[in-house]
Amino acid sequence: MKKSPNSENFSIKTSITPKNKSFIEIKERVRYSEIDRMGVAHNKNYLEWFEIGRTEFCRRKDIPYKKIEAQGYYLVVVETFCKYKKPLRYDDEFLIRISLENISPKKIVFAYELVTEKEKKIIASGYTVHIVTNSKAEVCSLPPAIIKKIRS
Amino acid sequence: MKKSPNSENFSIKTSITPKNKSFIEIKERVRYSEIDRMGVAHNKNYLEWFEIGRTEFCRRKDIPYKKIEAQGYYLVVVETFCKYKKPLRYDDEFLIRISLENISPKKIVFAYELVTEKEKKIIASGYTVHIVTNSKAEVCSLPPAIIKKIRS
Amino acid sequence: MKKSPNSENFSIKTSITPKNKSFIEIKERVRYSEIDRMGVAHNKNYLEWFEIGRTEFCRRKDIPYKKIEAQGYYLVVVETFCKYKKPLRYDDEFLIRISLENISPKKIVFAYELVTEKEKKIIASGYTVHIVTNSKAEVCSLPPAIIKKIRS
Amino acid sequence: MKKSPNSENFSIKTSITPKNKSFIEIKERVRYSEIDRMGVAHNKNYLEWFEIGRTEFCRRKDIPYKKIEAQGYYLVVVETFCKYKKPLRYDDEFLIRISLENISPKKIVFAYELVTEKEKKIIASGYTVHIVTNSKAEVCSLPPAIIKKIRS
Repeated sequence: MKKSPNSENFSIKTSITPKNKSFIEIKERVRYSEIDRMGVAHNKNYLEWFEIGRTEFCRRKDIPYKKIEAQGYYLVVVETFCKYKKPLRYDDEFLIRISLENISPKKIVFAYELVTEKEKKIIASGYTVHIVTNSKAEVCSLPPAIIKKIRS
Repeated sequence: MKKSPNSENFSIKTSITPKNKSFIEIKERVRYSEIDRMGVAHNKNYLEWFEIGRTEFCRRKDIPYKKIEAQGYYLVVVETFCKYKKPLRYDDEFLIRISLENISPKKIVFAYELVTEKEKKIIASGYTVHIVTNSKAEVCSLPPAIIKKIRS
Repeated sequence: MKKSPNSENFSIKTSITPKNKSFIEIKERVRYSEIDRMGVAHNKNYLEWFEIGRTEFCRRKDIPYKKIEAQGYYLVVVETFCKYKKPLRYDDEFLIRISLENISPKKIVFAYELVTEKEKKIIASGYTVHIVTNSKAEVCSLPPAIIKKIRS
Repeated sequence: MKKSPNSENFSIKTSITPKNKSFIEIKERVRYSEIDRMGVAHNKNYLEWFEIGRTEFCRRKDIPYKKIEAQGYYLVVVETFCKYKKPLRYDDEFLIRISLENISPKKIVFAYELVTEKEKKIIASGYTVHIVTNSKAEVCSLPPAIIKKIRS
């Protein structure tokens, strides 16, 4: 097979994790329906856990995501990345760590890490990139008051 | 906010798409339950569409994924990436394009592109990286016969 | 354990199936992520297949569900029932049969049957009950023109 | 439209709810991805909440469902019913109540009720019927020790 001109991209090293930063942490448990044929959590559920994580992140920063939307701002997902390191099985409990990696009026990046409850071994890590839009899906800027809270 | 030592990673340019390569193409339609509160398809569904895509890819290469597993090999997802460019709405039809980006006995990379049905505008693009394991979740090598078929 | 006063309800015999009626039929295939830990399709997916079925039912009656909503009417699910008879496995193809069981301006009942592709053996059967609301979630009546099309 | 011979079944009165019985109660929160195009939780998620409920029910009875499966018994879902009364919205917190409605060596019925957190208003109610199988999907009987724990 011919080498792709983009093949260098395969070696993406996403060390974008909440490790070196202040993060918030929540506990989750794997649901039966989240397990697939291999007996482990299906890859798409991690994006859902990331989402639960950033919902909780905003809540703890005293700006629940529901309120951000109520003010007419949407954090539209434009990029997701996840690296899966250890499998999760039915009924496993684990921690989701979320940190704010980057914020500007028009763009936010959250980083995530899923770790085992006791030994804090890394289960998965990843990030999501969001742009800010209004309710008509037009790109816009988050007001400083919201940015300040998320950054706090 | 302090710059992350990893912040260069944010500018990942994944032009890993099926564009320059032979790809197979299938048609899908957005289900009602795949739409979220914003009225567009939720980000996690794209990983499911990628999966439907590679299932079909293997089938057309005459080595249905079911048979790969029946022979004791599992293509475990270790990395997923998706870039979301245009929203998908309820009942929209779209095309999923899948190409084999890279294959070695222990690792496979598939690239994906979702495009609009008529004008072939890019809706999303991404890739998944898989390692090969046996049924005990131990890393192993795909037999040459399977590799040959996937590559064909 | 004390007998429940409602225990007669356990013997619900839902022979509400599309059998004796005109039905429309579509083909679906089980996705990898729809399989659970037992190796069979998870029970919640059947409700999604029912939904795909009624979406297609409306489309073939020349009144796509999207258009019903565009006219300001919502068919809100108020009851779902499913009886699971034979398991579905990864990559299985099957047929979804949908019939209109009952329609009045304020209430619609659809019946469903999932059957195997070749021998038409029953995989599952069930029904969904819908009330009609406007965009403010207030109960209202479907206009005669829509009822006529659905009934056609 | 000709009346169905089974139309009496439409008036199923499922008063099978945990009300009159001892039930266990857990708190859940609606995830963003569980919301559909209408802005409310999609009907299929209720079956997932029922499942989370019975998982927790078994855990509190000191017989985690994982252990039941580890002993070679599976509680296969053969029937699900749900009545939807009040909508759930993004980030809403609610209670899931689960009670054992009926148990015999070969069959178990769980009843569920979702209620609002403060005023305990009914959001939804339903039940699931399970038969017992071994790992080969053959019908079998639950051992008395497990039945005793579930009943306790």
